[in-house]
Amino acid sequence: MIETPYLLFLGDAPDGLAAKVAQGIKDWRPEHAIGQLRLAGCKADLGIPDLSIAEAIDKGVRTLVIGVANRGGIISASWKSVLLEALDAGLDLASGLHNLLRDEPELVARAKALGRSLHDVRIPPLAYPIANGKRRSGKRVLAVGTDCSVGKMYTALCLEKAMLSRGQRATFRATGQTGILITGDGVPLDAVVADFMAGAIEHLTPDNAPDHWDLIEGQGSLFHASYSGVTLALIHGGQPDALILCHEPNRPHMRGLPDYQLPSLEALRDTALLMARIVNPACQVVGISLNTAAMGADEALTLCEATEARMGLPTVDPFRHGAQRLAEALDGL
Amino acid sequence: MIETPYLLFLGDAPDGLAAKVAQGIKDWRPEHAIGQLRLAGCKADLGIPDLSIAEAIDKGVRTLVIGVANRGGIISASWKSVLLEALDAGLDLASGLHNLLRDEPELVARAKALGRSLHDVRIPPLAYPIANGKRRSGKRVLAVGTDCSVGKMYTALCLEKAMLSRGQRATFRATGQTGILITGDGVPLDAVVADFMAGAIEHLTPDNAPDHWDLIEGQGSLFHASYSGVTLALIHGGQPDALILCHEPNRPHMRGLPDYQLPSLEALRDTALLMARIVNPACQVVGISLNTAAMGADEALTLCEATEARMGLPTVDPFRHGAQRLAEALDGL
Repeated sequence: MIETPYLLFLGDAPDGLAAKVAQGIKDWRPEHAIGQLRLAGCKADLGIPDLSIAEAIDKGVRTLVIGVANRGGIISASWKSVLLEALDAGLDLASGLHNLLRDEPELVARAKALGRSLHDVRIPPLAYPIANGKRRSGKRVLAVGTDCSVGKMYTALCLEKAMLSRGQRATFRATGQTGILITGDGVPLDAVVADFMAGAIEHLTPDNAPDHWDLIEGQGSLFHASYSGVTLALIHGGQPDALILCHEPNRPHMRGLPDYQLPSLEALRDTALLMARIVNPACQVVGISLNTAAMGADEALTLCEATEARMGLPTVDPFRHGAQRLAEALDGL
Repeated sequence: MIETPYLLFLGDAPDGLAAKVAQGIKDWRPEHAIGQLRLAGCKADLGIPDLSIAEAIDKGVRTLVIGVANRGGIISASWKSVLLEALDAGLDLASGLHNLLRDEPELVARAKALGRSLHDVRIPPLAYPIANGKRRSGKRVLAVGTDCSVGKMYTALCLEKAMLSRGQRATFRATGQTGILITGDGVPLDAVVADFMAGAIEHLTPDNAPDHWDLIEGQGSLFHASYSGVTLALIHGGQPDALILCHEPNRPHMRGLPDYQLPSLEALRDTALLMARIVNPACQVVGISLNTAAMGADEALTLCEATEARMGLPTVDPFRHGAQRLAEALDGL
């Protein structure tokens, strides 16, 4: 569990895209995003106060989060001096970088001497159990995709926002690095050892109040040859009561797999439901989330309406239209 | 790759079952099983020569394989002196124990000083790539089960024996610890990090001659909540041309999951084929392997005949009846 609130370190980000992790935190947990820290040459701007480390401490910040990709895969000297200063001032560090904080001897020594925590969210923080397959109290919904990177995390986060605004009890459950940095907790599923994948998801979504919903971030796709095993572990560990189908129109092929076409929404519906009902026979597909970021507003609306008519399921782009109708679709389950 | 042939270390095995890894090596690779080494009190006997380490060296042995489970999860002092003696004499060590050779400082230091290898086959020996999903030349058959531990490894090994005896080109591909010790090579799939599972299986079953068959050892089951993700990675990484359904009759519930019934062979056939055809649309279910170890000969034969009539697929217990009919079922694929 990463201590909040955060100071978001943007480093020398060459553009806004390089700081998308920080942007995600600011978009989805604005109450955690107290300020940003930018180095000379930084071209990203989250529109929140620029704070020094001392100012951040005054405002109650507990952790400096590296919310930016680093160039060339190296933690540069200019970054390191900021990170050491943050440790000295009393902050923990959190990072989703491929190169790990724990592999930097200077940071490790300083953190140890001062009693600070280094959170590398790409590394599982604990030894998960093997799944036991037992039913748990509370409700769970999982976003499943026709492909990787079609908007499963955003769908779950939008759904959380809509459900909380309706006064429902709901918790986004992160299964990837960005989601973990947004919420401060979760399972980096793609880094878990095979035997423990489903058990990690059981651990992430424990018994809860009967009217509480876990909104589980999806990973991969049952149709993606590289990652389908991760997706199935998520379905069988999560035991979802409801599935939301996620899709991005107009992809020429599966992400990273030029020889593979995307499946239809019908194929995703039937296959995901078949697999989910192995562990939860009552599971239902309740709605569809289309990622229409590349489309105009009219075109997006027309596609959602046509898809809804074809599939007989509420269909929205939750980032564009809100997830109110997906939240309503969970009522009564 | 573990150097062969082997001296099989049985330690102080309390019974034959404790030495089942050694038994598997002796059954399936008798040409590797040059001799056995037993300590005082050992109740297991493979029926091969008892050899000292010096005698084993004389007969060309290259590796001492720990073919026995250790009591209490500790590598005892009496074992350790044998292992050190083997290193001194020129042998490598190989083990499928949960407690690792590499965690024993004395063994590590001795092996390093002498230039010997310590093979812990529960640990992936290399960093596998992410799967690319590309079609590969050669043919592949995968054993899939209604449950864990229903005889998938034995089915693939029996099939190898039958195919080689017919003059076909075939290679058993190990995906678990026992299989790796039997063949000296393979992928310990349950210990691979999630993102690399399917890639590990692509690595294990590379391009081959058009008439060559990889006989891939199955793991878990699509219907087993704890391990289904491992199974799907195996299906999508292996891209099988053929599936063999494996089943043990009369189990009261899924292994380790008292709340789950076993699926029918029809459900396994349909689900496994659906998932396999995502990566190989030509995949076929070609036969059924029943584990009838708990049945009498007549009862076993009757069950195979009834299952064959019901499913319309060649059905045998390959350990009991041989896998000739399964091998024939691959002809023409």
